[in-house]
Amino acid sequence: MPVRDLTVIGNVGDDTDVAGLHVSPDLDTVLYTLTGEIDSERGWGLRDDSSVALERARSLGADAWFWLGDRDIGLHMARTQWMGAGIPLSTVTQRLTAALGFPDRLLPCTDDRLRTLIDTPSGEIDFQTYYVRHQHRDRVIGLRFDGAEQSIPAPGVIDAVARAAAILIAPSNPLISIGPILAVPGVREALRDRSAPCVAVSPIVGGAAVRGPAAEMMRSLGHEASPIGLAELYAELIDVMVIDHADASTALDLERRGLSAVVTDTIMRDHEARQHLATVALGAAGILVQG
Amino acid sequence: MPVRDLTVIGNVGDDTDVAGLHVSPDLDTVLYTLTGEIDSERGWGLRDDSSVALERARSLGADAWFWLGDRDIGLHMARTQWMGAGIPLSTVTQRLTAALGFPDRLLPCTDDRLRTLIDTPSGEIDFQTYYVRHQHRDRVIGLRFDGAEQSIPAPGVIDAVARAAAILIAPSNPLISIGPILAVPGVREALRDRSAPCVAVSPIVGGAAVRGPAAEMMRSLGHEASPIGLAELYAELIDVMVIDHADASTALDLERRGLSAVVTDTIMRDHEARQHLATVALGAAGILVQG
Repeated sequence: MPVRDLTVIGNVGDDTDVAGLHVSPDLDTVLYTLTGEIDSERGWGLRDDSSVALERARSLGADAWFWLGDRDIGLHMARTQWMGAGIPLSTVTQRLTAALGFPDRLLPCTDDRLRTLIDTPSGEIDFQTYYVRHQHRDRVIGLRFDGAEQSIPAPGVIDAVARAAAILIAPSNPLISIGPILAVPGVREALRDRSAPCVAVSPIVGGAAVRGPAAEMMRSLGHEASPIGLAELYAELIDVMVIDHADASTALDLERRGLSAVVTDTIMRDHEARQHLATVALGAAGILVQG
Repeated sequence: MPVRDLTVIGNVGDDTDVAGLHVSPDLDTVLYTLTGEIDSERGWGLRDDSSVALERARSLGADAWFWLGDRDIGLHMARTQWMGAGIPLSTVTQRLTAALGFPDRLLPCTDDRLRTLIDTPSGEIDFQTYYVRHQHRDRVIGLRFDGAEQSIPAPGVIDAVARAAAILIAPSNPLISIGPILAVPGVREALRDRSAPCVAVSPIVGGAAVRGPAAEMMRSLGHEASPIGLAELYAELIDVMVIDHADASTALDLERRGLSAVVTDTIMRDHEARQHLATVALGAAGILVQG
């Protein structure tokens, strides 16, 4: 019988301070998704959360453009209090996952301060200003992962990559969601030196991102917005790419580059589609998922 | 017709950081009291506030001993955001009073960081740990106003004292509520050099504080817990003391020390009693309040 043994390594480049609260949007989205608490319509935040605190802040004139629900704020308060007491983000995350009955391991890529900064024609801005406040409308002319060079991987990260039976890179933005993780010294090397097969699911389908600004950003930074562009960004890091039927024509080119290509329906419309994609992706890594 | 022109100078020595949020308990209690939003049963916080965020934080294992309601958190978020942007506390407070339709001027004694530290037999602790977490049970063997020496009065504080038609020291703890205000260099001097009469209402009635640890604290720091002890603490700073009938026997002694004593009912049981006390106190300063 297969034992569920999953480690999720999450991005912290979009972590931010909202009115003094330490918010980790990517870790929280993983957490809320895997505990089933997520507001699946929006894709972030908690289902049926109230917003008493935020509405009060707004009524007092605060420029509260980062949405925070009340239960969400409670989690950020717990995290901020613990981090203020010197507890590393990975330990804090472990406490949160334990309290929420999260069944798997969730690791921030690093416990150190790493922030994604976005260079635009009107200057460099922090990630959440770009993504939430400006609704990712700015043209991206550069990226910087502030603090990455001095950071070290959080405990367990390198080990998880080295000992995995299979490695999966989710259909995330390769530049701003996966990029900050790879920017932590040692992580890219661990992935390059992997012993397990690594499967990436392409977030680009027919030249567009399923969600978010990945396609425009890839193009504006000189990459092709396609599985081929993704393969170049992930050169040496992956063995298999799962692509959508819409991109079936790129399969031959991917194989020429030494990758296996698996063509399937990659749009996660509903729970069944998500399960199908996970099964195909893990199957491509040689892992048999029992239904 | 008398024009209402009131400036309240508030203590910031009990300001604290709760999970990253800047909380100013004394300023907020004044604010909520004078806007009528206060939970008058408890004497702090907002009436009918929910506590979704705090309960969530607790359910995740946070040691959330400082009670914060959701609407309260909204105000702290606005304040923390503005202060994080470098806006001084006095300007932040002005924004909050304007947004809440607060009719008077509320000034923090200083915009600088000033924190009351309590020395106890088991070591020095911060104010909120003493007051809220330990429910002021520790014996107080010393007080320190950290940052006071380097602080300067907030804009308007010295002017308000110098230009007032009457000055009133509320029936607050002289050591930890009024003391930090007087510890800001220049404030004690401005009060000593006042041109208006200054009236203090005694918070000690019959050897006990109406509320809080004032009496024990005065005794443990070598003062008499009585209007006489208060007169010594306020030497040179006041002209009149309003005392309760229970302390009528101290009137002669106060007058021997050059103070006028006004004996009345000082227990603020209800709105009428509060109005009565205010009328008597202002009357003692020569201000006629029209009913």
